[in-house]
This record gives sequence, structure tokens and C-alpha cells, in this order.
Amino acid sequence: MNSKKIFFELIKNKKNYRLGKIHTNRGSLDTPAFMPVGTQGTVKSIFSDDVLKTGTQIILGNTYHLLLRPGIEILKKFGGLHNFMNWKKPILTDSGGYQIYSLSTKRDISNKGVKFKSHIDGSVHEFTPENIIDIQNIIGSDINMVLDECVPYSSSYSYAKTSLKLTHSWLDRSIIQHNKIKDAYGHKQFLFPIVQGAFFDDLRKKSAEYVSNCNLPGNAIGGLSVGEPNEKMYHFTDLVCQILPKDKPRYLMGVGTPENILECISLGCDMFDCVIPTRNGRNGMLFTTEGIINIKNSKWKKDFTPIDSNLNGHFSNDYSKAYLRHLIINKEILGSQIASMHNLKFYSWLLKISRTKIIKGNFTSWKNKIIKKITQRL
Amino acid sequence: MNSKKIFFELIKNKKNYRLGKIHTNRGSLDTPAFMPVGTQGTVKSIFSDDVLKTGTQIILGNTYHLLLRPGIEILKKFGGLHNFMNWKKPILTDSGGYQIYSLSTKRDISNKGVKFKSHIDGSVHEFTPENIIDIQNIIGSDINMVLDECVPYSSSYSYAKTSLKLTHSWLDRSIIQHNKIKDAYGHKQFLFPIVQGAFFDDLRKKSAEYVSNCNLPGNAIGGLSVGEPNEKMYHFTDLVCQILPKDKPRYLMGVGTPENILECISLGCDMFDCVIPTRNGRNGMLFTTEGIINIKNSKWKKDFTPIDSNLNGHFSNDYSKAYLRHLIINKEILGSQIASMHNLKFYSWLLKISRTKIIKGNFTSWKNKIIKKITQRL
Repeated sequence: MNSKKIFFELIKNKKNYRLGKIHTNRGSLDTPAFMPVGTQGTVKSIFSDDVLKTGTQIILGNTYHLLLRPGIEILKKFGGLHNFMNWKKPILTDSGGYQIYSLSTKRDISNKGVKFKSHIDGSVHEFTPENIIDIQNIIGSDINMVLDECVPYSSSYSYAKTSLKLTHSWLDRSIIQHNKIKDAYGHKQFLFPIVQGAFFDDLRKKSAEYVSNCNLPGNAIGGLSVGEPNEKMYHFTDLVCQILPKDKPRYLMGVGTPENILECISLGCDMFDCVIPTRNGRNGMLFTTEGIINIKNSKWKKDFTPIDSNLNGHFSNDYSKAYLRHLIINKEILGSQIASMHNLKFYSWLLKISRTKIIKGNFTSWKNKIIKKITQRL
Repeated sequence: MNSKKIFFELIKNKKNYRLGKIHTNRGSLDTPAFMPVGTQGTVKSIFSDDVLKTGTQIILGNTYHLLLRPGIEILKKFGGLHNFMNWKKPILTDSGGYQIYSLSTKRDISNKGVKFKSHIDGSVHEFTPENIIDIQNIIGSDINMVLDECVPYSSSYSYAKTSLKLTHSWLDRSIIQHNKIKDAYGHKQFLFPIVQGAFFDDLRKKSAEYVSNCNLPGNAIGGLSVGEPNEKMYHFTDLVCQILPKDKPRYLMGVGTPENILECISLGCDMFDCVIPTRNGRNGMLFTTEGIINIKNSKWKKDFTPIDSNLNGHFSNDYSKAYLRHLIINKEILGSQIASMHNLKFYSWLLKISRTKIIKGNFTSWKNKIIKKITQRL
């Protein structure tokens, strides 16, 4: 990437939905884009070249997991995560805030940062806004996230308000630290702030304004997809998207199902990440262009049609439903491989068609139709 | 394959070791050859196209496992195992004799055949020499094995003698049944008999003679690699190879380590199969051109050299030892995938070099040198 080149090109913005292009040192990606999750240096069960074959443009790494395993020292020695895992395209890393909320056995949040016990061995670690920037610098991600506090769905207004203040103060410190660090291994790193505010309109508005004022190259919406009904997720996404600047990509963290993604594209989101395609795939749930398949169901036992003949990719075409069922119910590793690759291919297909429909200007009508089709249980 | 074409071409036979070519309806293979094990319709953790990339020429399927899962009815509907698992090259299936010996919870052997309880759900099944031929006909293997009784290493002479008589009578019935069946889905099937006789010279000789007289297209040696010391394995392999006809391929069942294979090539064996490269790979044991690696060992923690830079194949070259260690110790599926593919590539390499050395006539001196190298622990 030419350093003078802009980070985000907004190519089309009709109603709320948008088409764009993000440029990083390790290549560009078309938005709206989905990022498969490569928790600890691997998109589970997929070779990095095969991840590319699913149409994936960028992956997400989890700072929390990478800190614990393999650890920062090793990543530094390797010149970053890209080298370590043999992935040459862009990587976005989260800040660990969500994992501390969801995984660590004990956490102690203060103004300084958060102390937590590893969910693996109970070892004690500390994240601060500053060291999270430093760690992501060592990981060598192309897009870094600031440390935030992700609060539970059930949080009270008063807890959420206090937490938001903390998250904003951490954001300020993150920017200061980000401005101090050098590029990672010669590659520019971009920092995204995160809108929090739980499920309270005024807090979400306040946070969206605070974040917008930071004028960073992209903006994220966190703290959603934590157990709330879809309607709430859409309400707060909409509310925040109305405030966030149009000329910056909007990343809706941890979302979601194909339906969630399409709805949130229509609200103005540009980037998504979620473990659903890979995790659910390993458990035998397949997203297809015709609807959702629970491959463990006996109805597929003798079905020798391909997993999804509307998709390219030999994992969707060359293996039958009956074969995949046989693999998954017998806990054969190859079942996880085929299902994960297929589901990622489906997500790539869904985002690619979305971009086409956005260009054509008929995204909304297509979205309403396709959601009915792809959410039906086959 | 032209039906008039011979099944086995013996290209070179120097001292005891041999170079050959086996021709089947689904392609030819150079011998000595190694067959990775695809227990229940998958070489564990490897896509069928990726199995090809490891240099594999033929795989082995387990009749016992395939009968239980996915079951014969499904394989029949698919037109055989090749279609079901999307593998276009030759398949050899064993007869299930070894699995009944090693896996089933209860077995009841009679002249008629063997009744056994499934190790999975306790369901009762029966193998007879006849139905084992029929089952393999439905599986559609290119090479079928006869039903035999595999006796424990500790068997008494009297038990082994009685068992051998049974195995030989089953062999006669297998041939009668084989001559009755049609080709499988238009593909010719070849039948191999199995030499048994436990660890008694006279029984092994008797069995080798009995088997030789059947004049089938190839001959197998069973009942070895069941816990005996290497010297005993080599002694009985040698003894049997001296009797089996030269113009038929000799398949040493269930063998073995790279060292075992090289030693038994030197004794005159042409075909091998074993779960070691894939199973040990999943557990972090890597065979390399420089020696054996236990990748879980902390000495590899920061080693960013490729797994084996002397081998082609991106799984051996594009991933570092430290990365593979990270994957294996954290039980990431991708670790099994990389290690399994690498180990199969190593086995293919070993067999390929062996064939080159056999052609050149210096196999024995090379074998003695390379065994020292590849069996050392790194």
C-alpha cells in the first residue's frame, strides 16, 4: 500500500448500506467483508492456503489467546503472526476485552487496566490500554483494536455508565500509545476504537460520538451479540451507525449469523467476525444457499447430492451430504475440515452477492428474500 | 487397465529385494509401495486430493470399520467406497480378521466363520469367508483380502496349528466365492490370500506353501507386527518370502515403522500398510529425513526452521517446527493435518528413494546407512 493511499474508499452509499474497499499494507479487501476467526494462530482445521480458497480476504486473531499461546516472545521471534501461521493477507486482532469478559476465571478491573487469570492454567496477566497496543504491535496485525470493557447483557445503567467512562479513558490512552509505536515489521498498523454503552440509548449515543471524535481510520461497535434478542442488536447497531462517520469503515464485532450480517449491512456495517461458520460447522451445522442443514439428521444418511452445488469449491461440490454426515457423526477430523471450509465459502458467497446487490442498488429487496431462504431448516 | 495386461510386472529382482509395478483398473502403482490407512472412508484428517499430494499411490480401507460405519447399504447406493470418499486411485481392503482380533469385545470362531460384537455399539455381526468377499465386492476395492484368523503373539503351537487349518479352509472357500462374483461396478477385483502360522517355522512354511499353491495374483503375510520383537518379524518374513512365488507381489500386512519397511523390502516384500505415519503424526511424532522428532518437546518451541526442508510439499516446508508444536500441544486440528500429511510425504519419499536404490542395485548399503539416520531421535 502506498502510504499516501487512503485506508478506506467508500465506493457506494445508498440508503444506509455501503460498498467500500479497505487498503492495508498486506492487500485490499472489499467491504462489506466477513473475517473468519483464527483464535490462536489457525482458522480451526483449515490450512492457510485453503482459507484463501474459501474466498476469505482477512482473518481475525485473538490477542488474549495469542498472548497465552504461543506467547508474545515466540511471535516476536518469528516477526509476527503472519509469518508464524503462514498467512500473507491482512489480519485484524481484537484487544482481548471480550475474552476477559467471557473466558477468564477471575478479573480485576481498575483504571490502570485489567488483571485476569488465564482460563488455561490460572496464571495471572494484566492488560492495560498501553500494553495491548504493544502486544498487537508484536503480533504485527494490520488492524489493531483498543482495549475496552465488554459488559454483560444484564448490566445495570449505573454499571454501564461507569464502565463506559473507563472504556473511553482507555481509548484516549490507547491512541497516545498507538502514536508512540513504530510500524510492525515495516507494515503500517491501523487502530480502531470501540463503541460500548451496553443496551442504553444515551450511553450508546455518547460513546458513538466520543469514538467518532477520535478520528481514527475505522470504528468498531462492541458489546453486542452478547445474548440480547436480534431486535436489540439491530436497534443499537442502527443507532450507532447513524452517528459514526460515513467515510470510515464500521466493524460490528462478533456478529454473527448470516441473517444478522445481512440485516446489519443494511444498517451500515462494513466488517464482521464470528466463530459461527467454523464452530457450528465442526458440530455439523451447515449453511447452504438453500437453507440450514443439520448434517447429523438421519435424513441425510443416503443423500449423495453435493453439500451445496450452487457454490464453487471442491469441499462444497465433491463431497456428498451422506459422506459428510458419516464423517461428522463418527467424529472424523475430515468432517470438521469439510464443514468449516464449506461454511466459510458460504459466508464469502453471501458477502460477495451482497456487494453485487449493493452496486445494483437492490440490496434490501434481495436481502429480505434471501434471508427467508437461507434461514429455513432443510 | 487392459484385461489382458498382467497384474504384476517384476521389473528387477536383485538378491531378495525387488522393483515392480502393479496394474489395476484404477491405475498402476510402483512397488515397493506403502498404503496409508483410511480406516472408515477417510485417511484421517486429510482431504483425498491432499492424500494424492503426499505421493500416495493406493490406500487401504478396513472392511470391519466400513461394515459398521457407514455400512454396506450406503456404500452400495454410492457405487462403492471410491465414490463415497471421492478417491479415484486404487483401494485395497483388509478382511476384518485383524480388527476382530484386536477390537471386538467378544468373538466366537467356528468353521462357518466368526461372530463378533461391534466395539462401537455391541451389535452382533458375522463374518464368513463368503460374505467377506461379497462385502468387499460392494465396497468395490481393487484388491480384496481373504478372511483369516489372526492369532495372538502368545498363542500355543496347538492353538496356532488348529487356527491355521481353519484359515486355510476359509481361504479355499474365499476363492470359490471370489470366482462366483462379478466385477465391482465394472472394475476388476483381485484377491490376495494371507499366510498365517503364528511364530512357528513349520506352520509358517506350511502356510506359505499352501498360499503359493492357490496361484492368486498376489500374496500377503499376516499375523506379524502383533507385538513380537523386530528380529522375529524379520525372521518369519524372510522365511515366508523364500517360499512365496517371485512373480507375485508380497504384501506384509500392518508393517510398520520406516525401519521395519526398509528391512522387509530387503527380504523381498513389495507392499506395506500401517497407521503409524498418521496416528503417530496426530500425537506429535514426526518422521523426517534427519531423524525422529517429538514435536511436543520444548526444544522445538522457538525453532522456526521448516518441518523438513528436504521434502517437497508445503506442509513440510511452509510451516515451522515451532508452529506445528504450538498447534499439536494446543490440540488444534490443523496440527493433526500438517503432521499426518508430512509423515505420509516422508513415507512416500522413503519408498521412492528405495525404488531408486533398488534400480541402481545399491539398496542394501543405502538402507543400512539411512536407517541409522532416520531412526535417531532429534
